[in-house]
Amino acid sequence: MAEADIHLVERLLDSDQVFQGHFLDVRRDRVMLPDGKTAHREYIRHPGAVMIVPLLDDGRVLMERQYRYPMGRVMLEFPAGKLDAGEDPLVCGQRELLEETGYSAAEWAYAGVLHNAIAYSDEGIHIYFARSLRKGQQKLDDGEFLELVTHTPQELDTLAASGELTDAKTLIGLLWLHRWQQGAWPLDWQPA
Amino acid sequence: MAEADIHLVERLLDSDQVFQGHFLDVRRDRVMLPDGKTAHREYIRHPGAVMIVPLLDDGRVLMERQYRYPMGRVMLEFPAGKLDAGEDPLVCGQRELLEETGYSAAEWAYAGVLHNAIAYSDEGIHIYFARSLRKGQQKLDDGEFLELVTHTPQELDTLAASGELTDAKTLIGLLWLHRWQQGAWPLDWQPA
Repeated sequence: MAEADIHLVERLLDSDQVFQGHFLDVRRDRVMLPDGKTAHREYIRHPGAVMIVPLLDDGRVLMERQYRYPMGRVMLEFPAGKLDAGEDPLVCGQRELLEETGYSAAEWAYAGVLHNAIAYSDEGIHIYFARSLRKGQQKLDDGEFLELVTHTPQELDTLAASGELTDAKTLIGLLWLHRWQQGAWPLDWQPA
Repeated sequence: MAEADIHLVERLLDSDQVFQGHFLDVRRDRVMLPDGKTAHREYIRHPGAVMIVPLLDDGRVLMERQYRYPMGRVMLEFPAGKLDAGEDPLVCGQRELLEETGYSAAEWAYAGVLHNAIAYSDEGIHIYFARSLRKGQQKLDDGEFLELVTHTPQELDTLAASGELTDAKTLIGLLWLHRWQQGAWPLDWQPA
């Protein structure tokens, strides 16, 4: 933390785990504000996740339609999944792409990380691109249901502009796809 | 829900509020999966939020640097805030822009909505653009500390590519800014 930011920083006083479910770990910390007063901060501890932007040889991208219970509807998304404890993000991306879609990729490129709910979660989603894809066998987790679809980047652009594509990580995948295709944001491709 | 999606849909069986803090409302629902088995879904109920992309007359955008406790650091963001109960998103955007930055805008345009944590939150963030800005008096909430900064769109693009700008809503604001400036995603400007 830059010393210049002292006027913004909140400091931990004590921490309480208020809920531990199968999935959500909810904390409530007491913090000291920059003015010396105290406040509480409630937030989710999250292991982090990986999203893959899978580029098919015909120029289309591989995506998923999945029912998202909190939203109460099917959402269009790039493949993604949570990091296992201690798992390398690239290994996670390769595992999730294979499990959810059945595809493996010969070339991978790391784009960056996004933080999707900074007010109440420490989740970071690593963004990978994958190409030279080869179809294999999907291995969905028990209780996981999803449908594979493909779109052209232009179709995704139209779906985003019209409000039919609203998933934040997927929109940021589209931003990266745009900027990479325009030559503005380079990707460093590596063999798998 | 399209009938074609029956093979993806999860149905509520019963719902339990497992934590109600000052800010977080955490639920744990038992659901029926598409195959008839049951599972639990843990998630946050969120009132929704509004983000503003404020365009200054000199071509720069108005932004905030704010300490985000779950992240443990200062983040660069477009102004945003939660909807009050029953509040119109545009009214919320105008209120938050004024409170957090002191600016009011003569012209507003609705861009769309993003869903930032679809695995575990029902939060939607409405995206507005604001222009013809006039500086007034900031009215920060008690316990709210932030710093105003301005950037050119080109600077934001560089910060995003280098991984210094990682806030999801702000990256999607940048996507909209790109596509609007490129003439691809039109905005319907209205007087305030």
